[in-house]
Amino acid sequence: MPEHAERLTALRFVVGGADSAVEMPAALQRYRPMVLREMQAVLDGRTLPIYEMLRYHLGWQEADGSPRDQSAGKGMRPALCLLAADALEGTEAAQHRALAGAAAVEFVHNYSLVHDDIQDGDRERHHRPTVWVQWGKAQGINVGDALRELAQFALQRAGLAGAPAASVIAALDALSAAGLEMIEGQYLDLTFEERTEVTLADYLDMIERKTGAMMGCSLQLGGLLASGDPDLAARLRVAGRRLGLLFQIRDDYLGIWGDSAMTGKSSDNDIRRRKKSFPVVYTFAAAGQPERERLRRTYRQSELSDDDVQAVLAVMNSVDAAAATTQAAHKEYQAFVSELDGCGLSPEGQREFGAVADFLLQREH
Amino acid sequence: MPEHAERLTALRFVVGGADSAVEMPAALQRYRPMVLREMQAVLDGRTLPIYEMLRYHLGWQEADGSPRDQSAGKGMRPALCLLAADALEGTEAAQHRALAGAAAVEFVHNYSLVHDDIQDGDRERHHRPTVWVQWGKAQGINVGDALRELAQFALQRAGLAGAPAASVIAALDALSAAGLEMIEGQYLDLTFEERTEVTLADYLDMIERKTGAMMGCSLQLGGLLASGDPDLAARLRVAGRRLGLLFQIRDDYLGIWGDSAMTGKSSDNDIRRRKKSFPVVYTFAAAGQPERERLRRTYRQSELSDDDVQAVLAVMNSVDAAAATTQAAHKEYQAFVSELDGCGLSPEGQREFGAVADFLLQREH
Repeated sequence: MPEHAERLTALRFVVGGADSAVEMPAALQRYRPMVLREMQAVLDGRTLPIYEMLRYHLGWQEADGSPRDQSAGKGMRPALCLLAADALEGTEAAQHRALAGAAAVEFVHNYSLVHDDIQDGDRERHHRPTVWVQWGKAQGINVGDALRELAQFALQRAGLAGAPAASVIAALDALSAAGLEMIEGQYLDLTFEERTEVTLADYLDMIERKTGAMMGCSLQLGGLLASGDPDLAARLRVAGRRLGLLFQIRDDYLGIWGDSAMTGKSSDNDIRRRKKSFPVVYTFAAAGQPERERLRRTYRQSELSDDDVQAVLAVMNSVDAAAATTQAAHKEYQAFVSELDGCGLSPEGQREFGAVADFLLQREH
Repeated sequence: MPEHAERLTALRFVVGGADSAVEMPAALQRYRPMVLREMQAVLDGRTLPIYEMLRYHLGWQEADGSPRDQSAGKGMRPALCLLAADALEGTEAAQHRALAGAAAVEFVHNYSLVHDDIQDGDRERHHRPTVWVQWGKAQGINVGDALRELAQFALQRAGLAGAPAASVIAALDALSAAGLEMIEGQYLDLTFEERTEVTLADYLDMIERKTGAMMGCSLQLGGLLASGDPDLAARLRVAGRRLGLLFQIRDDYLGIWGDSAMTGKSSDNDIRRRKKSFPVVYTFAAAGQPERERLRRTYRQSELSDDDVQAVLAVMNSVDAAAATTQAAHKEYQAFVSELDGCGLSPEGQREFGAVADFLLQREH
């Protein structure tokens, strides 16, 4: 554990060349141990082998059951939940109540990853074989389903931590509303792979559901469980959705121009899979008629060759798709900061949220 | 709709030859329209095409979107929930509160069916192509996930119907506890297919989770939302689990000796798939050493031939597996009736539960 913390602190995220660097902000690091403990408490005493599969996915152990340095995932959603609570209330009691929400959103996020990996046929996540590769797709579906139920167990612990019944019910409402939106987004994303015409509006609608909804819910739950004020929580939700868009657009950028060694993906993976990510949708919209026609023909094939990928990259360069993607992320950054202004956060909390947004905008993996 | 009601009323379930017949009890019929309306209210206004897939699965429409005579499924779990409420309280207000629970358990049941069909590779359900056959496995996973979220929406409506916050929270707790047990049961069931040694105790533990937990939850939610008394609800839960075991053991019987035209499955399907259902597990335990050794060899193959199936059936006959299966179902029947005695139900309610148990014990499909 101490080694792990040291390693995290030592991480540097190099941006725009060797001269500038963006460090992972403190808010994305300091909540990790408490979130881990809370999630472990929810799983405590569950001994059926299916729970070993869950622990494997969560990075807590190896496939053979041996313990592992916990490090799967960034833990961004729970951190945002707890940061919202701290920035609003700043008491230990409020943080304790929000911790239930933090664990819940992390369980939901992980259930979506396990099902996603099956749906997309992805064989690796965080440089390890995915659950379905280890235990088959049928058990993979079960593992995802179980993680979703555990999110309920996690959130219901808010009552034990002193949240009033009305807040617990409102939090459970918020979690299922965001959960359903996330599934709608996943549904749309899968249909986009089969469609040649996807507009930027279609794309933004899809990622607001698929990624924005649960990010918004993370801030909302933190606000709700800390303050008990549903209106304040609703405003945090709106802000959080912008942060989700920012995160996803940057993710799309990295899916094409990111360092594959850092992201653990092949750098042209998103193009080869005909994923309708921001740069692709933008390029379809911005390219001239002949290029667009050529792109359409390319994307009608079931698989893209190396030459196809290079040709798509060339059109992307010709319309400055990388710059347009970064600009779109910036736009969400501005919207996030501006939405956050009306949420009554402490100056320190506001500053920390800004640092998180900076980091998400500039991260290299 | 009137035609449909007529058809349901006209159904006769012939048991033990042409002389005796068991009719579907009124309790399994009269709640159907209100449950349907409640579930439709939860889905109301949801227009993304993924919801058309849900409506197809639920039997509300055809794959092309055209309306359909609603008839998918027996609606047993919601009926048990509402019967528990009526048998305890007998007021319209109590029934209205319990209706939220009824819709919730039916959504959970249907989510489990959609994922089950993917996991088992089943291509037909209720004589129609399964969701994954229509729209692929990736969207099938989404459809199941969405049905699970809708169960939350459904149950949260208990608050609108006047249930106090404490009851709503207790009901949500109960639903996720049963939901997780159901997944554990599904996990175990899948592992049994790969194991040659499964004891009757293993089997009963598995079906108590896979089938018993949600049946118990159905009665529990009815009791909880109607009466607000968690202790009474817990007793109904215990009784409902026995009913679940009875249901599943009879299901296993029909999976081997049922009329395939009635069940919509090939009569030897469960044997061919090496499913460790009650008759098979019993036969492994009751057969003499040489037969058991032969069965083991047969079950070590990845697929069973027609001759294998006939050979397994012959061993089953030699140990009277059919009678033993019926006897095991009878045992759960007795346990159910005896557990129900302490639940403070109206005499009419008690009688109706008895009629449901009779029906489940004797049904032919």
